Amino acid sequence: MNEATPQRQKKILVVSAHPDPRSLNAALTTFAARHLRAAGHEVRVSDLHAMKWKAVLDADDTLDHPADQRLHVLAAHERATSAGRLASDIAAEQEKVRWSDAVILQFPLWWFAMPAILKGWFDRVFTYGFAHGPAVGPPYSEGALGGRRALVSVTAGARESSFSDRGIHGRLTDVLHPVQHGLFWFTGMTPLEPFAVYGANELPKERFEAAKREYGRRLDGLFTDAPVPFRSLVGGDYDHDMRLLPGVEAEGTAGLELHIHPRG
Amino acid sequence: MNEATPQRQKKILVVSAHPDPRSLNAALTTFAARHLRAAGHEVRVSDLHAMKWKAVLDADDTLDHPADQRLHVLAAHERATSAGRLASDIAAEQEKVRWSDAVILQFPLWWFAMPAILKGWFDRVFTYGFAHGPAVGPPYSEGALGGRRALVSVTAGARESSFSDRGIHGRLTDVLHPVQHGLFWFTGMTPLEPFAVYGANELPKERFEAAKREYGRRLDGLFTDAPVPFRSLVGGDYDHDMRLLPGVEAEGTAGLELHIHPRG
Repeated sequence: MNEATPQRQKKILVVSAHPDPRSLNAALTTFAARHLRAAGHEVRVSDLHAMKWKAVLDADDTLDHPADQRLHVLAAHERATSAGRLASDIAAEQEKVRWSDAVILQFPLWWFAMPAILKGWFDRVFTYGFAHGPAVGPPYSEGALGGRRALVSVTAGARESSFSDRGIHGRLTDVLHPVQHGLFWFTGMTPLEPFAVYGANELPKERFEAAKREYGRRLDGLFTDAPVPFRSLVGGDYDHDMRLLPGVEAEGTAGLELHIHPRG
Repeated sequence: MNEATPQRQKKILVVSAHPDPRSLNAALTTFAARHLRAAGHEVRVSDLHAMKWKAVLDADDTLDHPADQRLHVLAAHERATSAGRLASDIAAEQEKVRWSDAVILQFPLWWFAMPAILKGWFDRVFTYGFAHGPAVGPPYSEGALGGRRALVSVTAGARESSFSDRGIHGRLTDVLHPVQHGLFWFTGMTPLEPFAVYGANELPKERFEAAKREYGRRLDGLFTDAPVPFRSLVGGDYDHDMRLLPGVEAEGTAGLELHIHPRG
């Protein structure tokens, strides 16, 4: 924090997903909450395992769904969302998201994706009519949850080189594309570059301290760092079938990078 | 099936993940089981919702884990796997995978990924010491589950164009990279191109019939279609830090496509 230009107090939701409160992920969540509060922000933490979060979306999530009728998830979610008839645990999480100016996800990368308990938080909380759908805004850049910053903080057992540009696991940013672009950007949130701790299966104290210092800098920039410059669906780069128009990308661009504006 | 060259009987595990037994996904699972059995194969179905599958990995999964000790997931999984002390629901699913010559996943694409209940099947069943780890084989192409074919069958609400090469959601094959490359190929399985039904929120009868015909052809080729030609970690394409060597790719290749052999 620069005392000459005090940052306005913001509201931050941290969603944390590790089964053990003694884990590295739990320690990073604790660190983030303390660091952000020390900077004057309000912080709420959804510790999914501590909350015994129900991971599995089913007909019980929409209170008025008739048991003898087929569950069309989008339609059932939309009806229950607009009628205020979602299960109370879902409604409580939606209220936290609505309250927030930024959402931080803290999770271990399991099988190159988030743990089931966190995926189930999105499956159940990001309902049609709340996080997407025609009633709340178009997808990609002008969506329902616009005005919020979003940061993934992830731990991975693998070395950083294996997630580098030519690393065998794929670039971390490509592996996380379904989260960064498909969840955050799709719903209108503003994603930052992910923060990652690699080689996390054994983390000596000095590397843990270095990771906290780096994470602290990322948290300091939560509202000021340049976000990932994903292309907007309404910015004139896509045709009516949601395909990128010919020639808008820099030469040699391919794959998921197509959907990012070339950096200046 | 060509009667002149009868296919050898194979064993196929279908893992299906939709909350409603009247859903399109359930119908595709039923279709696949019937079609494969009619061709002479043995089929087992893990219908995760019907099984009330526990999606969330925790310390209860490893029977001898002391409650007062930190849960290091890899280490706990490895000990419990080698000692035969995994929870019985996990052991039962591992037995089905071991039995199988092919694994088919049937799921709706929710937030550009699998539903939580299916992610939790992998988080809990694909333990260190069973699906990966030094005791059972190196990752990528010579892994623990080698000799098995793997097929994703997915339904998506979006149009096919939005998942095309320049589609805003990203190519389906890139969106599914964490599954195709990170789960199947990583553990030694042989992934086929995914089968997808697009525009699945409203599927008139004639499109459903066409989808079944196409899926039937894909099932007929389950053991004969050319797989996705991912590069092998041990094939000489990567350095010791698991980075692709300079110059091995065709000119203009970028992104996740780097990890696929150029087609002949």
